[in-house]
Amino acid sequence: MNSSLSNYMPERAERYFSGGADQRTVARALFESVADLPLICPHGHVDPLLFADTNYHFDSPAEFFLIPDHYVFRMLYSQGVPLEAQGVPMNDGEDASAVESDHRRIWQTFAENYHLFQGTPTGLWLRDELHDLFGITGKLTPANAQEIYDKISEQLAAPDFTPRKLFEQFRVEVLTTTDAATDSLEHHQAIRDSDWDGRVYPTFRPDKVVNGIDQQEWQEQVDLLRSVSGVDIVDFPSYITALEQRRDFFREMGATATDHAAETPLTAVLSPGEADAIFQRGLAGSATDGDARLFTAHMLVEMARMSSEDGLVMQLHPGSIRNHNSAVFQRFGADKGADIPHGLDFTRNLKPLLDRFGSHPSLRLILFTLDEATSARELAPLAGHYPILRIGPPWWFYDSINGMRNFFAQVMETAGIYNTVGFNDDTRAFASIPTRHELWRRIACDWLASLLVEGQIDDEDALAMAHALSYGLAKEAYRL
Amino acid sequence: MNSSLSNYMPERAERYFSGGADQRTVARALFESVADLPLICPHGHVDPLLFADTNYHFDSPAEFFLIPDHYVFRMLYSQGVPLEAQGVPMNDGEDASAVESDHRRIWQTFAENYHLFQGTPTGLWLRDELHDLFGITGKLTPANAQEIYDKISEQLAAPDFTPRKLFEQFRVEVLTTTDAATDSLEHHQAIRDSDWDGRVYPTFRPDKVVNGIDQQEWQEQVDLLRSVSGVDIVDFPSYITALEQRRDFFREMGATATDHAAETPLTAVLSPGEADAIFQRGLAGSATDGDARLFTAHMLVEMARMSSEDGLVMQLHPGSIRNHNSAVFQRFGADKGADIPHGLDFTRNLKPLLDRFGSHPSLRLILFTLDEATSARELAPLAGHYPILRIGPPWWFYDSINGMRNFFAQVMETAGIYNTVGFNDDTRAFASIPTRHELWRRIACDWLASLLVEGQIDDEDALAMAHALSYGLAKEAYRL
Amino acid sequence: MNSSLSNYMPERAERYFSGGADQRTVARALFESVADLPLICPHGHVDPLLFADTNYHFDSPAEFFLIPDHYVFRMLYSQGVPLEAQGVPMNDGEDASAVESDHRRIWQTFAENYHLFQGTPTGLWLRDELHDLFGITGKLTPANAQEIYDKISEQLAAPDFTPRKLFEQFRVEVLTTTDAATDSLEHHQAIRDSDWDGRVYPTFRPDKVVNGIDQQEWQEQVDLLRSVSGVDIVDFPSYITALEQRRDFFREMGATATDHAAETPLTAVLSPGEADAIFQRGLAGSATDGDARLFTAHMLVEMARMSSEDGLVMQLHPGSIRNHNSAVFQRFGADKGADIPHGLDFTRNLKPLLDRFGSHPSLRLILFTLDEATSARELAPLAGHYPILRIGPPWWFYDSINGMRNFFAQVMETAGIYNTVGFNDDTRAFASIPTRHELWRRIACDWLASLLVEGQIDDEDALAMAHALSYGLAKEAYRL
Repeated sequence: MNSSLSNYMPERAERYFSGGADQRTVARALFESVADLPLICPHGHVDPLLFADTNYHFDSPAEFFLIPDHYVFRMLYSQGVPLEAQGVPMNDGEDASAVESDHRRIWQTFAENYHLFQGTPTGLWLRDELHDLFGITGKLTPANAQEIYDKISEQLAAPDFTPRKLFEQFRVEVLTTTDAATDSLEHHQAIRDSDWDGRVYPTFRPDKVVNGIDQQEWQEQVDLLRSVSGVDIVDFPSYITALEQRRDFFREMGATATDHAAETPLTAVLSPGEADAIFQRGLAGSATDGDARLFTAHMLVEMARMSSEDGLVMQLHPGSIRNHNSAVFQRFGADKGADIPHGLDFTRNLKPLLDRFGSHPSLRLILFTLDEATSARELAPLAGHYPILRIGPPWWFYDSINGMRNFFAQVMETAGIYNTVGFNDDTRAFASIPTRHELWRRIACDWLASLLVEGQIDDEDALAMAHALSYGLAKEAYRL
Repeated sequence: MNSSLSNYMPERAERYFSGGADQRTVARALFESVADLPLICPHGHVDPLLFADTNYHFDSPAEFFLIPDHYVFRMLYSQGVPLEAQGVPMNDGEDASAVESDHRRIWQTFAENYHLFQGTPTGLWLRDELHDLFGITGKLTPANAQEIYDKISEQLAAPDFTPRKLFEQFRVEVLTTTDAATDSLEHHQAIRDSDWDGRVYPTFRPDKVVNGIDQQEWQEQVDLLRSVSGVDIVDFPSYITALEQRRDFFREMGATATDHAAETPLTAVLSPGEADAIFQRGLAGSATDGDARLFTAHMLVEMARMSSEDGLVMQLHPGSIRNHNSAVFQRFGADKGADIPHGLDFTRNLKPLLDRFGSHPSLRLILFTLDEATSARELAPLAGHYPILRIGPPWWFYDSINGMRNFFAQVMETAGIYNTVGFNDDTRAFASIPTRHELWRRIACDWLASLLVEGQIDDEDALAMAHALSYGLAKEAYRL
Repeated sequence: MNSSLSNYMPERAERYFSGGADQRTVARALFESVADLPLICPHGHVDPLLFADTNYHFDSPAEFFLIPDHYVFRMLYSQGVPLEAQGVPMNDGEDASAVESDHRRIWQTFAENYHLFQGTPTGLWLRDELHDLFGITGKLTPANAQEIYDKISEQLAAPDFTPRKLFEQFRVEVLTTTDAATDSLEHHQAIRDSDWDGRVYPTFRPDKVVNGIDQQEWQEQVDLLRSVSGVDIVDFPSYITALEQRRDFFREMGATATDHAAETPLTAVLSPGEADAIFQRGLAGSATDGDARLFTAHMLVEMARMSSEDGLVMQLHPGSIRNHNSAVFQRFGADKGADIPHGLDFTRNLKPLLDRFGSHPSLRLILFTLDEATSARELAPLAGHYPILRIGPPWWFYDSINGMRNFFAQVMETAGIYNTVGFNDDTRAFASIPTRHELWRRIACDWLASLLVEGQIDDEDALAMAHALSYGLAKEAYRL
């Protein structure tokens, strides 16, 4: 083992910075100027229950770090470790006894496969969380796995290790969750009813009542929508009324944004008659796959229309084939690390929406992509022209050092930073939020430092851009 | 404000160079070896009137820098500044009084939004032009905007600030314009008739009489072609005759190249009967959208055939959806920063043309792309095989530091530099030409320096490649 | 000539390393830790005759370096040097007298065009082979071409310059060839029958009996398959039996893998009736282009099924339009540098295969791409989930410094290195193998050094990853 190589590793304060000594010095100074800014978390998947329950405590280290994290279990799965052995819960009706319930064994299995995360963002997040949250400085190994498990368990159980306390400790200024259109928002109500003043808001995500109109689940979701809205949904207009009513409710509960997923960014404008005909086929259970695609496309334009009226910032996350692994989906359900991106075309697909609303004075539409080829080719030119458009940060597989570097390199020259929206941590794992924001801020400052040492920007610009990318843009873009 | 960061900015002579001290030293030496070479400008959009009018003077700073520059006004537009407020002229029939006519106010609006260009090529060009042409060393701000306006205005009015004088001062060896097939080339004639010996040549761009055969504008353009050519265009053969006649005229006027735009690189070979049938439908106003696509595809092969005979170098610029913003197009017309790229396939689409002419001894076809994914995947392998093919430099949104770096990284390993054609400034803004060429030469030398310090090439190669990329390749490729 | 620039070139031991002094020091130490590891060559195109013939000697320098190398002759062809002048043999029936037979003249032509390879991988390979194999340190020029020709010729004729001796000198641990399903493997048999213990194994490549069922050549190939297998192929089941029999034979001869080319990664599952109907149309000469696509798609799933049973590792190389230049294909045949990539979709196209076999415990499928846009977008997410999938190294046009750097940047964050398979030299040119592996190892170590100096990985990980990428992964992935 040539351990002298460790002499070349940076001190911790300069980690993730690239380039020579000058560039690293600049990156560090820029990072120090933003390191203590509050965190704006405008898009994510943290469960609001964490903040509604005044004394919520996290379960075991396995539950905290592994079991809910599809980045983790899909990697072990790809190398032959069954999901069962990783404690991933099965669908109802499956043989639950096959699922490992001993969290110490799950943790041990993970430790034995920890090398799989060498050079991956998951590896960096885990290492930095272990260090920053739990004070663990050594590397997780099969030999020390149980000792580290004990250490984490102890801290998870500590009285101060509650989401509300962490929220303050992390300096979270505002955090939004993602919630189904039919959600009662009861946890959000409980937070508002409590004496805690942390800003936690819902986000309106109507996918389940919009997408898949050819599926039985859609009909069940519309029943639910009928029930929670109190609107008698019998046709397309009453369906729209129900959605508008839910958006009003979300806005009253603090929401400033909506979110929409779609397999492609296809948008379309149907006549009222066409829309209702598809809708009726949906209710009758006779809608086709083509109906479903067209209905989603039309509803994206409807949602843009609603946002232009009620001011909710619209987000679009297209480009993933969900639940690609049929066998895993059948046994374990959705979100099991088997959502696979494919190539996209924003330029043609968004045109119907943009023809209607591209220059609307109060609409804002934030676009995300899983196809990096579209960043410079389509998203930057679109957002660099249309007033309503902003580009969301690198998402999902691209929430990584290279994903961020590519984003800065591909988007900024054409769109400028002011057509982007800062960072989204987009995570279910509340405790990983500071780590993720720090990584983004470090890479943003590293990029700005490279521009400065090449003479592309001056110090004044660099400092202003670092602040905007770390804090200001997200706050402004999401109207928070 | 941490102003000590400015200590890390490079001296002006080393701006835009990357890497460590060694690499920057090499880049600087390479750049110095090419900095004073004459400029070859084989593709651009400068108005030939500038050189026909012996005493042409530029209008205001707003007219000089902002109003005609779609890179500038689309960025402000994307952030909510109306095109009217930026002085962008409207179509006939629109309410022209809505357009700001006070150029000082337009300039002030620009200064207030100057931060939008941080880290963009437009920002670099503007800064370098202000410095190099007008001696302005400070940054444009809302506070100093009117003072800088005065300073520029004064110099624009100076007796020596004429295009002809600048042409010589810039060391332009040859500059070509882009001209419709039906253009009278009267300004080119005036230049030839004058005693000035600057080499300014037209380029034959027949798009308007080729593309859009399903549009009424095409019929009007064919009427114009009939009129200027004197050929009685009644069928496809007589249309071809008229085009050949115009090409002969352009060649007599010094043209060495043609240029062609198309939404995709589709090429096709129709039978004489098929071509004429589409053509007749075009004349009759009954051509379809499919006719238009196929006609353009066939005409690209026809144009290749003509180039193989008359020696005009053929250029193809595909991949943009023009006038994507319908509302802007209707009010302000074409070329308003709303041309948006989309994904391309050269490999299949060019095959019909290449099957006919791919190895023709006297044809040269220069390909440009707006889809960087095609650079390494398709263009480099194609140009690295077919004798007629060369790859044009990064175009439009990619005429930037990253665009150029990507180009060198994506194209050169497979195609080699000798299947590329040096630089095109591709600009309407005559006075920006030296700045753009300098940026290209700097980034080319930066790339060569990285190859040298990695031991990929030696000093002899680096110097030869720097010369070729800066000067030799463009001159040879365009037969200038 | 500014020869002082040569002072900035690295010493030979640090060539191809990037970054500052620290990173280069780390890269060098990592490289030194793997430089002497044996070579695993699990995919390539070396002729097994080289090892069957105990006293094989290479022909002239032109034959050794140029005539069989499509990387070389296509570059000169692209610049107007006819294939004939480069000694490329013609198809039967063509005028063979047009082909240059004087190898000294071919070599001289190459030397006169050597500058075309500046900054290309071919340029690096040639330079390093001339240096490492033949001790030539100066640059090839038209002036010294014949002198160098003499020097190489002399060494080619030396008694020790045989493939078997070189195999040992290169420290090749195992090398596999690529062989048609109908191949007799006579050279492999000869190697086994000899007293030489070099491990040279075949790879089962059934393309010619699978692809192009609409072509007459397919029928001829099936005749051949019928003959070598002894199976009376009359329908789809008997065709499958014949293929299984051939796979068994290949396995007996040491094969551990199969290889499959296809224009796209389309997979499909046909019913037995559908498969047989297409097969019968193929036999009858009435199959269509659509039949051919579907048959290949179905056969990929069939081959996956066979691999799941017999344990042969399956490789898929999709994405090239073969023999794009019709005129060259007609005169010179296949593999003449005119195979051009195009855009791919793995996500949708592989789904039928993955639905059947994606989590099979004994199947392994290695995917290669010629569309870099799919690396991060599709291959890494797919291989980072499905247990059967691994990602092959950068292939063909991407077997280059940038191709490798892109590969590390695009694949590893999502897939991790353990879902990749190390290096394939993929070459016909046996003597170039050490050079190609060294380039890969250097670039891998350069990448790892960048991770270390940025604090992404530690020294322990870096050393383990260097070993895996240089040696371990290939050996494990191919079950060698």
